[in-house]
Amino acid sequence: MVYWGANSRGASLTQTRRTAKGRATPARARQGEARRAPDAARRRILEIAARVICEKGYEGAGVQDIAAAAGLTKAGLYYHIESKEQLLFEIQSYGMDVFEEQVLLPVLNIADPLDRLRACMEKNVMLVTRGWSKEVTIILHEHATLTGEARALINARKKRYVRFLEKSFSQAVRRGRIRAVNPKVAAFAFLGMVLWIYKWYRGDGPIPAEQIAAHMQDLLFNGLETGRAKTKR
Amino acid sequence: MVYWGANSRGASLTQTRRTAKGRATPARARQGEARRAPDAARRRILEIAARVICEKGYEGAGVQDIAAAAGLTKAGLYYHIESKEQLLFEIQSYGMDVFEEQVLLPVLNIADPLDRLRACMEKNVMLVTRGWSKEVTIILHEHATLTGEARALINARKKRYVRFLEKSFSQAVRRGRIRAVNPKVAAFAFLGMVLWIYKWYRGDGPIPAEQIAAHMQDLLFNGLETGRAKTKR
Repeated sequence: MVYWGANSRGASLTQTRRTAKGRATPARARQGEARRAPDAARRRILEIAARVICEKGYEGAGVQDIAAAAGLTKAGLYYHIESKEQLLFEIQSYGMDVFEEQVLLPVLNIADPLDRLRACMEKNVMLVTRGWSKEVTIILHEHATLTGEARALINARKKRYVRFLEKSFSQAVRRGRIRAVNPKVAAFAFLGMVLWIYKWYRGDGPIPAEQIAAHMQDLLFNGLETGRAKTKR
Repeated sequence: MVYWGANSRGASLTQTRRTAKGRATPARARQGEARRAPDAARRRILEIAARVICEKGYEGAGVQDIAAAAGLTKAGLYYHIESKEQLLFEIQSYGMDVFEEQVLLPVLNIADPLDRLRACMEKNVMLVTRGWSKEVTIILHEHATLTGEARALINARKKRYVRFLEKSFSQAVRRGRIRAVNPKVAAFAFLGMVLWIYKWYRGDGPIPAEQIAAHMQDLLFNGLETGRAKTKR
């Protein structure tokens, strides 16, 4: 479960900040909870904030704009968040939480590396196509505005996913389940195929999300598979 | 050469704007030339502007900041560009110009669709890894700040590339050169694999760009290829 470990580090950032400032407000207490399981109200605020930041740009989006879009007063929003940078970090953390919960956690223990990669691709396609608002994906993958420790934490969680994919490809080659590939390039090819979907997918388009997942599994894995049986190691 | 046609439409936008404003300045005259072949000085300004916009955000980057980064006075920069929005459009147009010139044009006339797709992938990987500054790619794929006709023009040029890929995949299936795939998903899988590279590639990393291209061609095409011989139609 090493790839899942980032969550506790995320929580400890909030802890550290809370301690450093020497006060505990309801907003910060709620953030602590939210890191583990964002409730519907918080999820809604983060998705609305993501939308406003995507529309106006991070510089252009004021806390007032975000509060108004969420139907809150500025003070009401500050009950939930501490600053705009903290909000951006929270959106990215929320994106990573949901990703890890819906994509990574369910596949981590699949013994066969090829089955694991196929299942992971399907779950990731489903998340990108309808797991959350498109703007969360944009904030997660296009916004480099975070700095310092917050940025390092998000990047570490992303890198864990890349390493998980790399190791799964390596293992699949080693066990003879797929022909020889460069695991690093294969991992980034997988990621590119899957994550680029948010750039072109429309919910009302001609290809349902399940079919996109099936077509992509076919494109990447059916041509790699050797046909050798699954083994325990 | 239908996919190459966007260039002349791009030039006509500049024309329209010039006529609407009823004056012709050296800046606008130079833009007309630049649309066909951006010279080194202009290319340098556009790449620097792309970098500043990526660093500060489009809202946060002032014309003054861009001028300073380029070692120009504000008036000097206005000799080359007319407004910040025009500059953003110019960066994206420049990105599309170079892309079409270095990737699309050289492969359009390759008769065999599989050879065409393979060559196209290699050229696109080379462009993303070292054809220009990474920031031009970011501006081209992440900045939706353009509006109206300018946005429509850039999107039309991008869509032409997608249709070119789709048609090449369709043709490859029809001629029996690759097994049956969904051409639209295959086109976007190709694009995702190739364009995501700018997110992770570092020039000083362990895998040279040529090898990335070769690995990706292998990942996508070697498993699709049927082995049937090339035909004229």
